[in-house]
Amino acid sequence: MKPRFEQRLALLRQTLKLAGQEALLIFSLDNLRYLSNYSGEAACGIVTDDQLFLITDYRFLEHAQEECVNCEVVCRDRDKQSLGQAIDKILKHQAIQHAMFEAGHINLHNWLSVAEDISSCRCVSSTGIIEDQRKIKDRWEIEQISQAAAIADHALSQTLPLLQAGVSERDIAIELDYRMQKLGSEGVSFPSIVGFGARSALPHCIPSTVRLCSGDLIVIDFGAVINGYRSDMTRSYVAGRASTQQRSMFDTVDRAQQAALSSLHAGLPAIAASAAANTVLQDSEFADFASNGLGHGLGIQLHEQPFISPHCKDILQANYIVTIEPGIYIPGYGGIRLEDDVLITEAAFTFLSHAPKMCELPF
Amino acid sequence: MKPRFEQRLALLRQTLKLAGQEALLIFSLDNLRYLSNYSGEAACGIVTDDQLFLITDYRFLEHAQEECVNCEVVCRDRDKQSLGQAIDKILKHQAIQHAMFEAGHINLHNWLSVAEDISSCRCVSSTGIIEDQRKIKDRWEIEQISQAAAIADHALSQTLPLLQAGVSERDIAIELDYRMQKLGSEGVSFPSIVGFGARSALPHCIPSTVRLCSGDLIVIDFGAVINGYRSDMTRSYVAGRASTQQRSMFDTVDRAQQAALSSLHAGLPAIAASAAANTVLQDSEFADFASNGLGHGLGIQLHEQPFISPHCKDILQANYIVTIEPGIYIPGYGGIRLEDDVLITEAAFTFLSHAPKMCELPF
Repeated sequence: MKPRFEQRLALLRQTLKLAGQEALLIFSLDNLRYLSNYSGEAACGIVTDDQLFLITDYRFLEHAQEECVNCEVVCRDRDKQSLGQAIDKILKHQAIQHAMFEAGHINLHNWLSVAEDISSCRCVSSTGIIEDQRKIKDRWEIEQISQAAAIADHALSQTLPLLQAGVSERDIAIELDYRMQKLGSEGVSFPSIVGFGARSALPHCIPSTVRLCSGDLIVIDFGAVINGYRSDMTRSYVAGRASTQQRSMFDTVDRAQQAALSSLHAGLPAIAASAAANTVLQDSEFADFASNGLGHGLGIQLHEQPFISPHCKDILQANYIVTIEPGIYIPGYGGIRLEDDVLITEAAFTFLSHAPKMCELPF
Repeated sequence: MKPRFEQRLALLRQTLKLAGQEALLIFSLDNLRYLSNYSGEAACGIVTDDQLFLITDYRFLEHAQEECVNCEVVCRDRDKQSLGQAIDKILKHQAIQHAMFEAGHINLHNWLSVAEDISSCRCVSSTGIIEDQRKIKDRWEIEQISQAAAIADHALSQTLPLLQAGVSERDIAIELDYRMQKLGSEGVSFPSIVGFGARSALPHCIPSTVRLCSGDLIVIDFGAVINGYRSDMTRSYVAGRASTQQRSMFDTVDRAQQAALSSLHAGLPAIAASAAANTVLQDSEFADFASNGLGHGLGIQLHEQPFISPHCKDILQANYIVTIEPGIYIPGYGGIRLEDDVLITEAAFTFLSHAPKMCELPF
């Protein structure tokens, strides 16, 4: 199985045509990777009716020539040519007079400078064109995220036995990251979140030297990367015997997740999945401490469209990959979050993450 | 020793006053960290004559309240208030009518949306105000980068014995990253670059499964992080006995680095340091394969001002911390780069990185 860059480009060109545009200037490296396989930095792209240009500089030239697919790599001498001049030269040569550009991926300062150098083409701003397309994953993409999720499962099973008295949040995060990479992950999907005790209530807890004690709530949120595609999973536990309140928090989050998962299928408005989880959370004693967002798309970016919340306007489609991650966060006490990566199918969904969910860890 | 946030703010306020501005809207998380200690995400700041506001949302609220210094943390409900509305409310409440904003740190799309919501204040774009200030490091900052560099030195010494026949670039990168973190680094400064053989000529080689063979050139470029401050060091070796050409490449880069280092002192135009290295490189048999840039500032960002190249207009000042990293890259054959982190002093410089430089590794 191979990534189908040509199909992705063809779909994008259809969109451009419908919008009456001859080209799209791409400033997002993630979008460039999606279209061309480029994994380097310092690049921008131009998609025309029949070509994809990738502009970079000497630092990434060989890299780009090696890995880019269906793509003309243009090397810019940064000392002699501005980015705008490099873009303008291609637009002129291709006789392009109407183009869109990714306004959400270039800072205001750089855009003003680029725009000044573009002399013969009318550029209109756009957002989310490729991101919209990226929501539906192709078979190759599903395979990469599945592999990343499997690595995360495996690394977690290797790391759980280390959750013993006295181990620090940092220790666990470091071991988890190391094991994922030894198992084949390209770096990590994001810096692992590990929170013990009251710190488990921090939705983005940065691992500290705080050490694990019996009875602590534990939140571990982490992911692996394969060919640029990310996984993202959270498990929560109690170190040893759970208190009544901890057990009740765990069960509530578990039921909320189940409710959302049971609702999933192609054609479901994302807010309906959100509502399914929220009904459970809001009917519980923890209503004041429930999370807002239910989940997000997952792919080349850790957080990508759709963002599943009570305000999401998206309709879930087959081959979306999303996280489902309800949580309860009680400041000063602790939190529980359960997060899985799932593939939306016509009839329901398929789990990509498989690590067991259990309230209590032997301690 | 503590970071001197108040002094940093005082200096910034002087600059704003000179520019006739009442406030600065900060969209760079690095600049926010520099001013407030905030290490989270999804935030922006407003510096006024006597206050620093940090706007974030519930995910980072507790985090911000815990770590921010001299700072009023404002929690925005993203479902009910746009970022522009949150900014406008503060500007109005503070009766601010003239502000600058960081045009290099907000994308065009977001800025247009923010600007639409700002009703009572004239905002003018600015770039590099805080970055310019950040070039000169205070004692606390120097201490953090020194510690990060020391961790990198230590981790490298632990990793070098692993450079044996059959080890892969990835293996080395993973072990190096793991060891830095075990030694106290917060994650890594950047994904470690490890290149063997011909791949050592790639300036930004992404570690692969390529395995080490006797006689290979080896480039290792990596760094640690302490309290958000980064180190960045490169060492190059030959696995075993160096050929005449490899030895000559190594010696040339070593002499180029020495020439640049010998030139360093406060008051030196950065181009003079660049010229010192380039004279050695251009006089050598490898003139066609020499790198362009000599180095860069180092701090909260891996690459920050000044960028030392033949086009740099900066004058080096005491307490700048920069890398000095000449290199020779022969496509298809291999490369050598030697990079150290140095503190500019009145009279000369001080090494922050200390790992020994040697052409040949026992193999």
